[in-house]
Amino acid sequence: MRIKLINPNTTERMTLAMDRCAREVASTGTQIISVSASMGPPSIEGYYDEALASLALLQEIEKGEKEGMDGYVIACFGDPALYAARELSRGPVIGIAEAAMHAASVIAPSFSVVTTLKRTCTMSWHLAERYGMKRFCKNVRATDVAVLDLDIPGSRARSIIIEECRKALAEDDAESIVLGCAGMAEFCHEIEDAIGAPVIEGVTTAVKWAEALIALKLRTSKRGDYARPLAKQYDGALAPYSPGKPR
Amino acid sequence: MRIKLINPNTTERMTLAMDRCAREVASTGTQIISVSASMGPPSIEGYYDEALASLALLQEIEKGEKEGMDGYVIACFGDPALYAARELSRGPVIGIAEAAMHAASVIAPSFSVVTTLKRTCTMSWHLAERYGMKRFCKNVRATDVAVLDLDIPGSRARSIIIEECRKALAEDDAESIVLGCAGMAEFCHEIEDAIGAPVIEGVTTAVKWAEALIALKLRTSKRGDYARPLAKQYDGALAPYSPGKPR
Amino acid sequence: MRIKLINPNTTERMTLAMDRCAREVASTGTQIISVSASMGPPSIEGYYDEALASLALLQEIEKGEKEGMDGYVIACFGDPALYAARELSRGPVIGIAEAAMHAASVIAPSFSVVTTLKRTCTMSWHLAERYGMKRFCKNVRATDVAVLDLDIPGSRARSIIIEECRKALAEDDAESIVLGCAGMAEFCHEIEDAIGAPVIEGVTTAVKWAEALIALKLRTSKRGDYARPLAKQYDGALAPYSPGKPR
Amino acid sequence: MRIKLINPNTTERMTLAMDRCAREVASTGTQIISVSASMGPPSIEGYYDEALASLALLQEIEKGEKEGMDGYVIACFGDPALYAARELSRGPVIGIAEAAMHAASVIAPSFSVVTTLKRTCTMSWHLAERYGMKRFCKNVRATDVAVLDLDIPGSRARSIIIEECRKALAEDDAESIVLGCAGMAEFCHEIEDAIGAPVIEGVTTAVKWAEALIALKLRTSKRGDYARPLAKQYDGALAPYSPGKPR
Amino acid sequence: MRIKLINPNTTERMTLAMDRCAREVASTGTQIISVSASMGPPSIEGYYDEALASLALLQEIEKGEKEGMDGYVIACFGDPALYAARELSRGPVIGIAEAAMHAASVIAPSFSVVTTLKRTCTMSWHLAERYGMKRFCKNVRATDVAVLDLDIPGSRARSIIIEECRKALAEDDAESIVLGCAGMAEFCHEIEDAIGAPVIEGVTTAVKWAEALIALKLRTSKRGDYARPLAKQYDGALAPYSPGKPR
Amino acid sequence: MRIKLINPNTTERMTLAMDRCAREVASTGTQIISVSASMGPPSIEGYYDEALASLALLQEIEKGEKEGMDGYVIACFGDPALYAARELSRGPVIGIAEAAMHAASVIAPSFSVVTTLKRTCTMSWHLAERYGMKRFCKNVRATDVAVLDLDIPGSRARSIIIEECRKALAEDDAESIVLGCAGMAEFCHEIEDAIGAPVIEGVTTAVKWAEALIALKLRTSKRGDYARPLAKQYDGALAPYSPGKPR
Repeated sequence: MRIKLINPNTTERMTLAMDRCAREVASTGTQIISVSASMGPPSIEGYYDEALASLALLQEIEKGEKEGMDGYVIACFGDPALYAARELSRGPVIGIAEAAMHAASVIAPSFSVVTTLKRTCTMSWHLAERYGMKRFCKNVRATDVAVLDLDIPGSRARSIIIEECRKALAEDDAESIVLGCAGMAEFCHEIEDAIGAPVIEGVTTAVKWAEALIALKLRTSKRGDYARPLAKQYDGALAPYSPGKPR
Repeated sequence: MRIKLINPNTTERMTLAMDRCAREVASTGTQIISVSASMGPPSIEGYYDEALASLALLQEIEKGEKEGMDGYVIACFGDPALYAARELSRGPVIGIAEAAMHAASVIAPSFSVVTTLKRTCTMSWHLAERYGMKRFCKNVRATDVAVLDLDIPGSRARSIIIEECRKALAEDDAESIVLGCAGMAEFCHEIEDAIGAPVIEGVTTAVKWAEALIALKLRTSKRGDYARPLAKQYDGALAPYSPGKPR
Repeated sequence: MRIKLINPNTTERMTLAMDRCAREVASTGTQIISVSASMGPPSIEGYYDEALASLALLQEIEKGEKEGMDGYVIACFGDPALYAARELSRGPVIGIAEAAMHAASVIAPSFSVVTTLKRTCTMSWHLAERYGMKRFCKNVRATDVAVLDLDIPGSRARSIIIEECRKALAEDDAESIVLGCAGMAEFCHEIEDAIGAPVIEGVTTAVKWAEALIALKLRTSKRGDYARPLAKQYDGALAPYSPGKPR
Repeated sequence: MRIKLINPNTTERMTLAMDRCAREVASTGTQIISVSASMGPPSIEGYYDEALASLALLQEIEKGEKEGMDGYVIACFGDPALYAARELSRGPVIGIAEAAMHAASVIAPSFSVVTTLKRTCTMSWHLAERYGMKRFCKNVRATDVAVLDLDIPGSRARSIIIEECRKALAEDDAESIVLGCAGMAEFCHEIEDAIGAPVIEGVTTAVKWAEALIALKLRTSKRGDYARPLAKQYDGALAPYSPGKPR
Repeated sequence: MRIKLINPNTTERMTLAMDRCAREVASTGTQIISVSASMGPPSIEGYYDEALASLALLQEIEKGEKEGMDGYVIACFGDPALYAARELSRGPVIGIAEAAMHAASVIAPSFSVVTTLKRTCTMSWHLAERYGMKRFCKNVRATDVAVLDLDIPGSRARSIIIEECRKALAEDDAESIVLGCAGMAEFCHEIEDAIGAPVIEGVTTAVKWAEALIALKLRTSKRGDYARPLAKQYDGALAPYSPGKPR
Repeated sequence: MRIKLINPNTTERMTLAMDRCAREVASTGTQIISVSASMGPPSIEGYYDEALASLALLQEIEKGEKEGMDGYVIACFGDPALYAARELSRGPVIGIAEAAMHAASVIAPSFSVVTTLKRTCTMSWHLAERYGMKRFCKNVRATDVAVLDLDIPGSRARSIIIEECRKALAEDDAESIVLGCAGMAEFCHEIEDAIGAPVIEGVTTAVKWAEALIALKLRTSKRGDYARPLAKQYDGALAPYSPGKPR
């Protein structure tokens, strides 16, 4: 099966890191096709970044439909344009926050999210709410580490994050940690080893969740909200994005 | 004061109709500046349309900041990109669904939303939830009237909508009606007269709500989520949208 | 238009202060008619005070209907007898807590309420719940300043309140402050200047919200709960309060 | 022990009927002291009636404290002024809606409320919410029987109510019925026999719940909201209602 | 009337202590029949203990039906197998957590639970949720006192619990305390005296609540979920537990 | 990896059917070990059946830990004893209702559950609530088909179920169906073909979800509630079930 992993930001080295993580967990027979956004923000740290990142993301989904993808992973913890992507897609589309929260709710009575910037904390609460996961979410904690500092060699980012995870266990009584940024994917096991409690990372979880749904032959329902966008002609510079007839 | 009313779709005659409605209720001294999206979908009937409409909408907000606007009305019942718009804006930004639901909750114990397409019903429920208005919302009812048919002379659209409003009163025990589409603005009083119960329409309500907040010198909080987007350079075709430094 | 601002307590100097605030924000053409309760508690600091304050308040609404008022503001943060007032009134009736919370939810992702006595905190939570605003309310904070000390010259009341607002920003991560007592109306801008974040005060907000709804010709729905009270003869000393036939 | 049963309306024959019901279930050693409101509405059918009924009700609580009552039952399904009454009382104060809903939630997975007027349905939903009983409440059904018609000989009121209870079982899948009006107390067993499912009536349930709490020596907490009203001098005609110092 | 109090653990001295508490509050004419589980865990401190304790508990209910019991109290704060017990029983079955939370919600605006082990805190939150009492529950606090240490003479258990109750009042702003373990029943008044706020203990409260419901002739609804288990033959060692035909 | 699929009832032919379904979707390298309960109810149709089924189920988990299982699927739609099972297990334990609801929430905006007996509908609502899936669940529909009739050749069970699924789409506006009984696993694709909308079946979904979590090396958190049961000696006939020391 073919799963397209879309990094909705343009930072290629994040895409490569996520691709490595994804391949490591993918089953034999699963092909991971990872792409970065072709334009837009190099990191997504607020609603405006998110709105602007949607364009390239949706383009990649639409392209993926022609390429015969079986499913998609949206690889940014804000799960941008998830519902719009589902309108375009025949197969399942999974957000990494969605996948991580689902998994956390299975293996632990609760979780805390440890994320980067304080200004994105409300976004994580919104996600927890829309997935029904608010009841499992003890807290959303910011570290004020910038997304793009996460993999700078010698940066203190990792130790700051580990410290915050420890606080989440001690102060929130959380029994597991959800990492609130795709950029943290590669340190997941390092953090887990450091804190001694399950740490759930969305990229790999979403890949496996997608594999599962595809294997089950489950596809996005085309009744109601997730039906193919109505065919219409868009105006001006966005004309190329006009939704055509459902295939 | 200057309020910019942004129709996030490109259909000029809808913008003109909304402009007429807005001017009719605006106070002396309030200047209404109505604009249509410069590109994108001619009507917004799903998540994909909404995501694509955000681009021109946010452009208009950013332009508005330079033009010295005091506040904004997002004139589409889905309130697209509302939070992103608030990041850009110093003054208040109000969605028409938000304004209509607030008003309905003041003048009646509950409301039902009467909207166009069934596929957008869940979107209205999501809005009701995020504004805290779910407890007042008895039902969301689709008429399966297309947005752009609403003002076609001789179309049955109006009588279908009036009929659905009557059903909402009778079957849902709703005590008021919220019109779930900006395109219905001009018929608001006609519907109210026909059904004998308050009918709330978002465009005019949002204009008055914006006027009120601006008169109170209330501005979008720049702490937390609605802070100005972090300054960064966007890549590729979206480079012109890069958020600059806060002014 | 004519808006009656009813202070449900008997303290004239609070009424005068609120009247000043209201007039300052009222549009040209809006007449503010401010009255104090003709009897009952000089301050409202609990459920019993509130229940007893309802009598004079409802009397003023009923009188207002004869005087041709277009709408009403109930100027006490507990929004006493709001639904009963709506039964009597043809135009909109707005509580100051309701108005303040609505406004806060538009200009900021969340708010904390800063109020006077600890014993009224649960009351504020109840209000937040019934208006659907609980999801925006980070905290309700008491200062244990007595209502009637607020405007005593040289009292420490103001600095205590400013201090508590600062704590709300820092400890609750609230992005705005709702002042939880009508008596704080006059210091609103002073507090805002001191803390550097939006401070919402209910009296002025309710006046503008009322103006907006009246301009929109929205009136209290007479279907369901807010229908005119059933005409009946009350017994004994309360006979003069008997609800007559709807006009 | 001495339990004061307060009918907050002035209709003596309802009080007598409730007194008979109460005495029938009271334990040996429990003295039931039933009183009607000394003034105000003869029936409570809306928010205004309820607000006006509070005066006499609270007077009776305050008097009861001097008479040495051990607890109180507020015998109107709207549970008017319950929290204010608790401020005045040392012993427990129980509303009949509260008691009936608690009991229903113990003996059945859910209940439907069958009440009199449609305009009071929202009030019942509010009660269910504030007692945490919304999750057990399948529906609130109006019969549009007037409160004071309930015991008119030969009236069709009873058969209408029985019919509505049957519908609640069949259409709502409710497993029990809560009678939504104190005036229905005497027909409780008649209805139960007719429909073959548990029917819970608040007057008797509240009496037994009060007995239980009094026997357990549980008293209203005087910390927080239910503390004795602050001592203060009320103005004008309400001066006699001024809350004095806690005893 | 005959109420069977079932201690679902096997520790006889806890049963005896609860029996003493129950008899102290029981009305004349109420017979308390207290039994310990005939097999299973000596204390219930987690989900596994709880599942295993269900067997003997349900056996005692089934036996009770033959003995002609009028109602049951499940005397463990987790209220194990409550719904299954209701399927078997004709009369009311009450859990001690359920009863305590109901009572607390009547006499105080909120409560905190003070329990034994941290690992059972989520269980208490689940209970609060299923009874609709979450809105009254400020906190669930663990003392890490083992259930069976509670009555060891000279143990520090009591002073640790009193200390935690004090913290609940001060830090949670709770106005009452619910004791989260049947083993604390005997110290209830001692704790109340020490902290000066209402302390609710479930064993005695459940006994009185059961008495009340039985006196009201309320029985478990046999419609829907709580209907008698379908008659069927169980396999193997559990054959003796096969549910027979409803009597 | 080795996944143990536990049918908590004793009906071997259901276990075999589920085993066939499970093997069909399992990845190469996944070993499915399916077992029936060694004792207890042949079908689970209520709380009592569920409580009694827990014993054999937990025994199989404990055995599985010694057999070196990597994870477990509890193959009954009530997800009996799920939390207790997690206390015993090191690897993930997944309920089929939990897995099916998670999957449905990814591929569709909402689902309706179609189950067997009316008396189990509330149980499904409880499950939806505890997994946070209530917001996605439009309805729970009973067919009053008995579990063990599902695979009787020539029974009308299948057509009744298909009919109910169709109603769910039409009347509930559900966009997908969750099958509410493990016994329906084998007809999943048949139903999907008949109704033309996604049908989610828990057994296969749980197997894939388990595979995913195990591949991700996620294990049940041993902090908090799901920690190994405290080691203690059980009494009487249940002594063999005494939880020993964590391994």
